[in-house]
Amino acid sequence: MSDLYVPKPAELGYTFGGREPIRDLRPGEVLSVYTEDCFGGAVTTVDDLPTRVCQLPYLNPVTGPFYIEGAEPGDTLAVHFLDITPARDWGVSSTFPHFGALTSTHATATLQPPLEERVWMYPIDVVAGTVTFQASESDFALDLPLAPMHGTVGVAPGGFQAISTLTSDVHGGNLDTPELRAGTTLYLPVFVHGALLALGDGHARQGQGEASGVAVETAMRTTITVEVLKGVPTPTPRLETSDALLSIGCARPLEDAFRISQHDLVHWVAELTDLGVLDAYQFVAQAGTAPVGNVCDPNYTMLARIPKALLAEAAYDGVHERLRAMPWKTPEAGVR
Amino acid sequence: MSDLYVPKPAELGYTFGGREPIRDLRPGEVLSVYTEDCFGGAVTTVDDLPTRVCQLPYLNPVTGPFYIEGAEPGDTLAVHFLDITPARDWGVSSTFPHFGALTSTHATATLQPPLEERVWMYPIDVVAGTVTFQASESDFALDLPLAPMHGTVGVAPGGFQAISTLTSDVHGGNLDTPELRAGTTLYLPVFVHGALLALGDGHARQGQGEASGVAVETAMRTTITVEVLKGVPTPTPRLETSDALLSIGCARPLEDAFRISQHDLVHWVAELTDLGVLDAYQFVAQAGTAPVGNVCDPNYTMLARIPKALLAEAAYDGVHERLRAMPWKTPEAGVR
Amino acid sequence: MSDLYVPKPAELGYTFGGREPIRDLRPGEVLSVYTEDCFGGAVTTVDDLPTRVCQLPYLNPVTGPFYIEGAEPGDTLAVHFLDITPARDWGVSSTFPHFGALTSTHATATLQPPLEERVWMYPIDVVAGTVTFQASESDFALDLPLAPMHGTVGVAPGGFQAISTLTSDVHGGNLDTPELRAGTTLYLPVFVHGALLALGDGHARQGQGEASGVAVETAMRTTITVEVLKGVPTPTPRLETSDALLSIGCARPLEDAFRISQHDLVHWVAELTDLGVLDAYQFVAQAGTAPVGNVCDPNYTMLARIPKALLAEAAYDGVHERLRAMPWKTPEAGVR
Amino acid sequence: MSDLYVPKPAELGYTFGGREPIRDLRPGEVLSVYTEDCFGGAVTTVDDLPTRVCQLPYLNPVTGPFYIEGAEPGDTLAVHFLDITPARDWGVSSTFPHFGALTSTHATATLQPPLEERVWMYPIDVVAGTVTFQASESDFALDLPLAPMHGTVGVAPGGFQAISTLTSDVHGGNLDTPELRAGTTLYLPVFVHGALLALGDGHARQGQGEASGVAVETAMRTTITVEVLKGVPTPTPRLETSDALLSIGCARPLEDAFRISQHDLVHWVAELTDLGVLDAYQFVAQAGTAPVGNVCDPNYTMLARIPKALLAEAAYDGVHERLRAMPWKTPEAGVR
Repeated sequence: MSDLYVPKPAELGYTFGGREPIRDLRPGEVLSVYTEDCFGGAVTTVDDLPTRVCQLPYLNPVTGPFYIEGAEPGDTLAVHFLDITPARDWGVSSTFPHFGALTSTHATATLQPPLEERVWMYPIDVVAGTVTFQASESDFALDLPLAPMHGTVGVAPGGFQAISTLTSDVHGGNLDTPELRAGTTLYLPVFVHGALLALGDGHARQGQGEASGVAVETAMRTTITVEVLKGVPTPTPRLETSDALLSIGCARPLEDAFRISQHDLVHWVAELTDLGVLDAYQFVAQAGTAPVGNVCDPNYTMLARIPKALLAEAAYDGVHERLRAMPWKTPEAGVR
Repeated sequence: MSDLYVPKPAELGYTFGGREPIRDLRPGEVLSVYTEDCFGGAVTTVDDLPTRVCQLPYLNPVTGPFYIEGAEPGDTLAVHFLDITPARDWGVSSTFPHFGALTSTHATATLQPPLEERVWMYPIDVVAGTVTFQASESDFALDLPLAPMHGTVGVAPGGFQAISTLTSDVHGGNLDTPELRAGTTLYLPVFVHGALLALGDGHARQGQGEASGVAVETAMRTTITVEVLKGVPTPTPRLETSDALLSIGCARPLEDAFRISQHDLVHWVAELTDLGVLDAYQFVAQAGTAPVGNVCDPNYTMLARIPKALLAEAAYDGVHERLRAMPWKTPEAGVR
Repeated sequence: MSDLYVPKPAELGYTFGGREPIRDLRPGEVLSVYTEDCFGGAVTTVDDLPTRVCQLPYLNPVTGPFYIEGAEPGDTLAVHFLDITPARDWGVSSTFPHFGALTSTHATATLQPPLEERVWMYPIDVVAGTVTFQASESDFALDLPLAPMHGTVGVAPGGFQAISTLTSDVHGGNLDTPELRAGTTLYLPVFVHGALLALGDGHARQGQGEASGVAVETAMRTTITVEVLKGVPTPTPRLETSDALLSIGCARPLEDAFRISQHDLVHWVAELTDLGVLDAYQFVAQAGTAPVGNVCDPNYTMLARIPKALLAEAAYDGVHERLRAMPWKTPEAGVR
Repeated sequence: MSDLYVPKPAELGYTFGGREPIRDLRPGEVLSVYTEDCFGGAVTTVDDLPTRVCQLPYLNPVTGPFYIEGAEPGDTLAVHFLDITPARDWGVSSTFPHFGALTSTHATATLQPPLEERVWMYPIDVVAGTVTFQASESDFALDLPLAPMHGTVGVAPGGFQAISTLTSDVHGGNLDTPELRAGTTLYLPVFVHGALLALGDGHARQGQGEASGVAVETAMRTTITVEVLKGVPTPTPRLETSDALLSIGCARPLEDAFRISQHDLVHWVAELTDLGVLDAYQFVAQAGTAPVGNVCDPNYTMLARIPKALLAEAAYDGVHERLRAMPWKTPEAGVR
């Protein structure tokens, strides 16, 4: 049985980069970790308004970073998510002043007052596979499918940067896409010796776009394994699922996130099919989809997706299949 | 058996508004129409480069407008698509100079030369349900699922405007979303006496985002029926399918198209569930998806989608169910 | 002495295109016209809230269109503003619900209520050259320099379109730039037989960006003269002043308006200096400025500006100098 | 006579935050520093293409950080530029692959090849006050006014971040505005103990928007003095000149940079005039201008400007006047 790595509060991180590793992780090793929710677990009732109980800007803590043995700049780190399971029987969401897609924000600055800050608690039933929406102003309640995912996974960026866990870019980070669920492999470029992988921001579920700015946030027990692809560059974060390849673009405005994701997928497909770039552009434009990640964070995210059934060749030499076959066990519950 | 209305070349329209109706359509009547492809049928081989064989700006012709009996400003027009079937056994796509998502454009103006203009022909097999991609630089070929849809459906806008069929806005127009397929109902606000509905721009299939700027374009035989919802306003185009409601936002930048669609869906859900607006915002943010329409036209389009199973009340008093039950027959093939 | 053409209320237009000319104008002829303010003159006190006294969408009326003798598609129309003088001793401004840069809008849709609708009246003293800001909540008052300009000047667009006077594009329209003042020449592409020039939306003054969405709006007595440059294309509206050339970009997002304007100026400068395109790019990037027009209308506007002292050759064969030398007299006041 | 602080190569920084101070600076002390150009001085001829002679991502080095005595989080740091003088008799500019406003970029990703990488050398004559553009493809040459400025000035951001000197945000950074010249005071919020001020990226001149992505880059000898305003918050970087106040917005898309700058200026003016917020909005919208900074960096910058003559009260209790009166002498030339 795997151990569960449970970070001490002082070990939680708020940047990618700028921090020392808390543990080593060897390629092929299976690691189970506990991750806190985006509020650091401080919001436990509808009366815990985030701006009161959280200390800004210390939101969105990550567990890690993990030093990946053998990872060097120019390599690709493949992170496979064997399991993502809520570590609590509740999740929480909220409005947050001047944050979200349907409100003015710090950047889309207007003279209007913010929307009311409000908290919603969501019961989670892992066995039934449900997460329950309960209205705040009426007795409307509805079970939604449990769909656990990590909002934030990344490595240390290059150039001595230390980037807030609230944002995303080529190093990963706050990708906030519901596609990042158990069974997927995330490919990240390595910028520093040891890669320095960290993860957090579990969501029991999230709509595409994360319009309100906050998903159903919860602590997670998550089991991963990694592989290092030596000398293989990855231009932007990518995902592989059992049936599709996806490129992730992180940018503002949203069309640039779209462009980055499509641009990368076109080149990736060209490489896997031996199509010329214009042929691959044409092919992806007709056969692809474009799942939205978030439209609320400092960088928005969009994905470009192509079914693997349309491609002859396996991506990254089949590492996804190797990693998903890795034997693992449910970690023993942590002590928090 | 329905007649098929086949417009004469001189009857094709290039604007919404500014044109006289070519025919009347009564609510409940079933109408089959022939629509030309976005190139007016002028691109028939890979040697027919669009900029050579088409006369700019006369692209994207629509069939219509149809005068809808009883439709007046302030009403909603429900247009149900009973059938959309390719009228040819081939479709066509292309790059088009300075048009598309992965190229500089007239608006995203750069000093780089355009991508090479190139045409792809797609065999269509209606019986097998396939449309075949054939690479231009190799013998790579692949069947993709046939998924017929209309890129362009709209009514006359208000304020005496006549808006190019290449763009979209609250009056509909070049929505370019793969969600607009047979079996769906499109809700459009009525701005002028008789609504003046027109449609065209059939796609044998289209990826989300229409990244290359051009889908698999083909002529269509399409069967519709309409209903007028008197005194019922619709703020932005909406779709209803057998299992979902969708709001459509048309704007630049892309986040504004997202915002419009989510804003409308939040209010629509609030109305159908009696949730308060903040509760509906929270609910849609966790339970909704955001299918991308196009990221290449003068206005981009995004959709906000919620499963009908989550909503207690039927939209627009159940008109979708009434219209989809309308009896109809395949129209006799037109003469072109 | 010139006559003053004063349009009857029924002659005011709300689109570019879609309307018959109200008068002819010969190249070289001097024409004085009266233009109404953007509210059609309906807001005359601080109690006249625009949403109450105006009938939407009939805002921003223009005087015209004028049929320009000899103007054909592919030509350039040079419109020189000999004089722009307020026709009233007051102007008016306001907030307008969900319109402006520092509020959510129809496109940048949020769930926040609109800012309060409020009207400000501005005394205008043409002799002293002042327009006076008077605070609504205190006795703060301050004279600002009178700087009369037209927000909206354009021709009929191509492709049978009729475009709302609230927006701008290659045909001109609601450019809303303080650079469009007396002494400047506006160059517009001609799309239709007779060009069909119209103008309105006088501003006693306007800040760059028109952040609140509404300038100091007033009726104007304006004197123009025109010339037609046969067979000379103009890609986007351009301005010439006594000391500078300016290209105007109309688009969203704002960086695209910037790109269009810079792209056009680079090519214009290349043409006037015989520099290669990359040299012209480098030159404009170091020597140019970028005056902001508006950041509130359906299309934003930005200008790219280069001092004429840096250029060897006169633009458009010196038409600006010819037109500004045209003799003219103050028109007799109209009857309204 | 002031000493000139000349950093050793190893002391140059590429982030704001994440670095130890290299020197202390007391409020009221006058400091002269040498700053390298954005290429670290590596581009010295037209044959030194930046991508060949520079080691990416190590561009845009800054001198510092300086530990400001007494500066604590929540304070404002006022940095007054007593003098900015080129330290060389030449500057350099270039195109840079996929960087700039009139090219596709990493974010505005297209399938087009980059523009040709090319270098321009600019002779600088400090006595004559000129910087000379020399075309690369012809013998066109022209003197432009020397207008020295710093592109990059900032402090350490909060939240343990270390942000690349290539970008800008509330901590300042790569603001790239021609308004940041000698005689101005820059106000920055303090996020960390000692503020950790750094500066670099001197420009002999720069057009508004920095369209080509690179200004006339040169090393500088710059003399500053600082004051700490205890307990006075500053929401976004601000500038004060002899005749105007300016707020700086850093964001994408460009309209958000505009919004941030206008939003801040409206509140700043409200505070200095006792106007209500809507009155201040109205006032700034009619009386203000909006100088463009850059439209090419990871964050674009726009400024909102109001003449001081319109305001009754001095900003920040008159610190600008105090600092500009500080006696100083030209520093002795450094040894490089």
